[in-house]
Amino acid sequence: MHKVDTQLKIGIIGLGRIGQVHLAALKTIKNVEVVALSDISLDHVKKTAEEYQIPHFYTDYHNILRRLDIDAVWICSPTSHHFTQVMEALGNNKYVFCEKPLDADKDKIQTIIDSYPDINHRLMVGFNRRFDPDFANAKTTLKKIGKPVIIKITSRDPFPPSAEYSRQSGGIYNDMSIHDLDMARFISESEAEQIIAIGSRNFTEDTDTTLITIKFKNGVICNIDNSRKASYGYDQRLEILGDQGMISVENKKISHTRFYFENAIESSVLEPFFLERYKDSYIEEAKAFITSIKEKKEFPSTAEDALKASLLADACAQSLEQQKLIFL
Amino acid sequence: MHKVDTQLKIGIIGLGRIGQVHLAALKTIKNVEVVALSDISLDHVKKTAEEYQIPHFYTDYHNILRRLDIDAVWICSPTSHHFTQVMEALGNNKYVFCEKPLDADKDKIQTIIDSYPDINHRLMVGFNRRFDPDFANAKTTLKKIGKPVIIKITSRDPFPPSAEYSRQSGGIYNDMSIHDLDMARFISESEAEQIIAIGSRNFTEDTDTTLITIKFKNGVICNIDNSRKASYGYDQRLEILGDQGMISVENKKISHTRFYFENAIESSVLEPFFLERYKDSYIEEAKAFITSIKEKKEFPSTAEDALKASLLADACAQSLEQQKLIFL
Amino acid sequence: MHKVDTQLKIGIIGLGRIGQVHLAALKTIKNVEVVALSDISLDHVKKTAEEYQIPHFYTDYHNILRRLDIDAVWICSPTSHHFTQVMEALGNNKYVFCEKPLDADKDKIQTIIDSYPDINHRLMVGFNRRFDPDFANAKTTLKKIGKPVIIKITSRDPFPPSAEYSRQSGGIYNDMSIHDLDMARFISESEAEQIIAIGSRNFTEDTDTTLITIKFKNGVICNIDNSRKASYGYDQRLEILGDQGMISVENKKISHTRFYFENAIESSVLEPFFLERYKDSYIEEAKAFITSIKEKKEFPSTAEDALKASLLADACAQSLEQQKLIFL
Amino acid sequence: MHKVDTQLKIGIIGLGRIGQVHLAALKTIKNVEVVALSDISLDHVKKTAEEYQIPHFYTDYHNILRRLDIDAVWICSPTSHHFTQVMEALGNNKYVFCEKPLDADKDKIQTIIDSYPDINHRLMVGFNRRFDPDFANAKTTLKKIGKPVIIKITSRDPFPPSAEYSRQSGGIYNDMSIHDLDMARFISESEAEQIIAIGSRNFTEDTDTTLITIKFKNGVICNIDNSRKASYGYDQRLEILGDQGMISVENKKISHTRFYFENAIESSVLEPFFLERYKDSYIEEAKAFITSIKEKKEFPSTAEDALKASLLADACAQSLEQQKLIFL
Repeated sequence: MHKVDTQLKIGIIGLGRIGQVHLAALKTIKNVEVVALSDISLDHVKKTAEEYQIPHFYTDYHNILRRLDIDAVWICSPTSHHFTQVMEALGNNKYVFCEKPLDADKDKIQTIIDSYPDINHRLMVGFNRRFDPDFANAKTTLKKIGKPVIIKITSRDPFPPSAEYSRQSGGIYNDMSIHDLDMARFISESEAEQIIAIGSRNFTEDTDTTLITIKFKNGVICNIDNSRKASYGYDQRLEILGDQGMISVENKKISHTRFYFENAIESSVLEPFFLERYKDSYIEEAKAFITSIKEKKEFPSTAEDALKASLLADACAQSLEQQKLIFL
Repeated sequence: MHKVDTQLKIGIIGLGRIGQVHLAALKTIKNVEVVALSDISLDHVKKTAEEYQIPHFYTDYHNILRRLDIDAVWICSPTSHHFTQVMEALGNNKYVFCEKPLDADKDKIQTIIDSYPDINHRLMVGFNRRFDPDFANAKTTLKKIGKPVIIKITSRDPFPPSAEYSRQSGGIYNDMSIHDLDMARFISESEAEQIIAIGSRNFTEDTDTTLITIKFKNGVICNIDNSRKASYGYDQRLEILGDQGMISVENKKISHTRFYFENAIESSVLEPFFLERYKDSYIEEAKAFITSIKEKKEFPSTAEDALKASLLADACAQSLEQQKLIFL
Repeated sequence: MHKVDTQLKIGIIGLGRIGQVHLAALKTIKNVEVVALSDISLDHVKKTAEEYQIPHFYTDYHNILRRLDIDAVWICSPTSHHFTQVMEALGNNKYVFCEKPLDADKDKIQTIIDSYPDINHRLMVGFNRRFDPDFANAKTTLKKIGKPVIIKITSRDPFPPSAEYSRQSGGIYNDMSIHDLDMARFISESEAEQIIAIGSRNFTEDTDTTLITIKFKNGVICNIDNSRKASYGYDQRLEILGDQGMISVENKKISHTRFYFENAIESSVLEPFFLERYKDSYIEEAKAFITSIKEKKEFPSTAEDALKASLLADACAQSLEQQKLIFL
Repeated sequence: MHKVDTQLKIGIIGLGRIGQVHLAALKTIKNVEVVALSDISLDHVKKTAEEYQIPHFYTDYHNILRRLDIDAVWICSPTSHHFTQVMEALGNNKYVFCEKPLDADKDKIQTIIDSYPDINHRLMVGFNRRFDPDFANAKTTLKKIGKPVIIKITSRDPFPPSAEYSRQSGGIYNDMSIHDLDMARFISESEAEQIIAIGSRNFTEDTDTTLITIKFKNGVICNIDNSRKASYGYDQRLEILGDQGMISVENKKISHTRFYFENAIESSVLEPFFLERYKDSYIEEAKAFITSIKEKKEFPSTAEDALKASLLADACAQSLEQQKLIFL
């Protein structure tokens, strides 16, 4: 594989909202240099390069892949480009970070998995929530509460997406729940055996509110609660009951200021959405990527994780449609 | 019906743990007089009468039913005596408060329901949690959060019951979940349409940990999470997501003292069990009973409520056994 | 001294707001019987006796003092009657509980202290906050935080008293701060050496907002913050910094229900005033009185405590007037 | 004055702990370029320049002052160098950010103030806490609680400084309390009229625990509580009582994970010290500096603020020594 100097050199493909998040995250990390950017809009990539003093920028991402000084590429383009860009970047012997979903087509994910025997040393998939300091802390301290018996995940967006986005998103399970299904696997350290989804339509023309119940092979039972709308902000919680205690990951609030009035004590609202709530997770995710390379370890979230979460999302959709418990 | 003076006169049948709770609750209420007690143990009933200065006490509860000065009786005896005592007390023209479960046999509950056309003005069943100030507050302020879409109920006991109790209890759904199923009906103001229960055995030889998911006729979806053991105390929470906000009823803690140490900030544990956690609910329940009589209104929790919660508990047990979604 | 049976028999003198509180508290305690009440209003004392089924009631309190079956009297009359009634009750060989202030005149307090060598076994003064479960818990767990170094007490009333009450009250230090000065002595377990008060007028025509700073003989430093008005409710907090940690006693809220809205997360307001906030303290105080008698111990809050708190209140008033630090 | 392009170009003098903090903060801000660093250690400045890809580095800070492309300098050297470097940087027509304290000698601060008529457009002093999002939020929302009447500031370090540092630090008032005295001026928007400090020695050989009480000209009364040691972490709180409500700025905790155990509910400890607790404040401070330049406004914390806080610290030391209230 590619040999990496002390200073990891990075190129970023795609500078939409999530590309900007990753760029800002990478700029806070020492001993990492973002040397090139690409985006289909010349104005946009030029402006971003200037704002962050990035020396090279292109409209054709192949220019990044061709640079011999670049060790790793961050693929932040639209999902439809992921497969091609991942395969090309791997072919150019780059370490690859790809935003999720890897692809809507499970066969293509399988193709990626099969492409290199050491694919988990070459490609990391962006399940950023695993790197959120609070969730990661819950995972590493799990043994404090003994054997886990119930996992509860609450994940609600502040407002529903546009009708157009909803149509293309593949539905609530593939678009929203997939993060929570990955979290359920991450925390339970097991695979699902039974799954059922019950849902309703409250804010849009599609299922936008749902309760998913899972039984894992190791006996852990899990409830996921998703809503396309939580008028009070981005609600992201995790709770794990163990036979010796409970861990609860609570929401982050915008401020620590509290107001005491005649009719109520008011505390701050939650972080508005994922860019703010999970800001630290993108930094920790990038650090985990870098550490894995330096320590020659498997990346901590892989194409296989992407495939498994995707299969669970499909099972939820099937359960809802057929109104029955699905056995996996 | 019986005419009631300003001062309501009450007899209590059965002075076990729950009978003592009701007696203590009634002693805190003005314009109510407990005039007679009965219990099968003479020593016990005599001692209790002395401690609380109750003028009359008996070992045969019929002596209470025969007293013309008594307006209302509190039936706190073992469940197997409820049916007979309720029917006799109603026959003696007393207002009746009966602890739940009314009876394990749904036919007998139906017999009680059918016994008087105005049974809901004569008999109240003790679903005490409805009268907990916090849950009651959530119910009365529901409109603040718009239309409810998700209800989540957490209800976990601090420690599992004895093996003997477990065997007789009718299982976790009829013994524990029944309270939460009543709460789900109370909050949703609807009847269940679909229900599924998934469970596991962690602390006992029977299902002792369970997740119940319900879809109500009005579209509300609900998750109930029960465990026979929560090592950190009696965990009783309710959360309602509405399209305009969320209501969350949180646990009560023993104290408001917080300790700041080098390794953790420690706050007080939860109330240990139902006698402490729901202490106020028993007082409010008694007040609701008295108010209903004085204002000639239906009692707020009826034999019909008891029957419906019981049918849902049976559906849960059936769902678990058959591993499928039950349509009601 | 008076010999007490298992069942302690009590008379209450004065049935104003605080007398009613003590009566309600005593009714919740087992093995205690309130046998007689007195109040200058016949209608009032008769109505109260009926509501609580108290067998005897009088308009002349001497009738209570003369009853040989009565072990203890609760003096809840206006302050101006305390001295005479306390002395008469002691003379009739009764155990005496007297509401604070014992008297506005420190010489009369000294006369009471000097009246019997075992006065602390005969008379308890109602510093109810010492018996609040949270404050008492802080006191008994003090050693967890090592040596105390800073004590902070916040005590703010929800609304200012009437102009008339203010005039008669003896000012904020003798009326309000005196509770906190007693608490500071109780927690520090030391006597004040230096004291200074700084104040302002914001809600009334007298000093109604004040910061008191105390240095105790054992080196503990203490800040008390009082306000005649806290628009958000009755604010009662205590914080103790020790060299090994901190204890914080937080406010009690009316409910555990929390509302999540678009602009704020709203939790319940505080308990409205002392009757609600300190309801449990009155019960614990009565139990402490009874226990002290049964175990033949000194009462836990004495005439001497009343005198010392009163002297500190005077020092505050003097400090404010003279704008200087007072050495005691 | 110096003309600034869109891209502000910055040099940093001094790369000790606080210099590193400012460098990391500046790297997260768009349209700002740190072009040069200086530090007396060549190894250190070279290593830092490489880690952050800074093009120029020097051991002699004059090289930074001489660069025509540099708009602004950040003075992060030891206090004893501040005066000379500030004067030289101003003389080179640079915008200057200087860490506090500006100088231990009030005459030198006055010399700086008098050096340019528009000194507040040229020099900003680093009272970073004013830019902490929570404290800044409290300040901007003050009117929600009406007229402020009491301000309470808690500020406790996690552990005492070394004996050597303590000796050089000028004592607790000039070293620690000065931040809180500035905060008190910032929130009260008034100047102190009376001040008293009471203290004790618990952790070191000097006064290390203190309560400061201030009366401001506008009637606001204020308590500051400082300790050189809080075993549970870096305790930073602010509370403002107004006639219409209260604002409370609470501590930040390391995580949002909570553990429920049999004996306690444990939440995360506080941020360990100022680098973590005030991390965001350094970013906001730098942004405020940049915004003031671009909008040609006075800087929001000035040499005059530094002088006034310093005079209050001296008054505290005098009050403690003379054991009396100081009138200013």
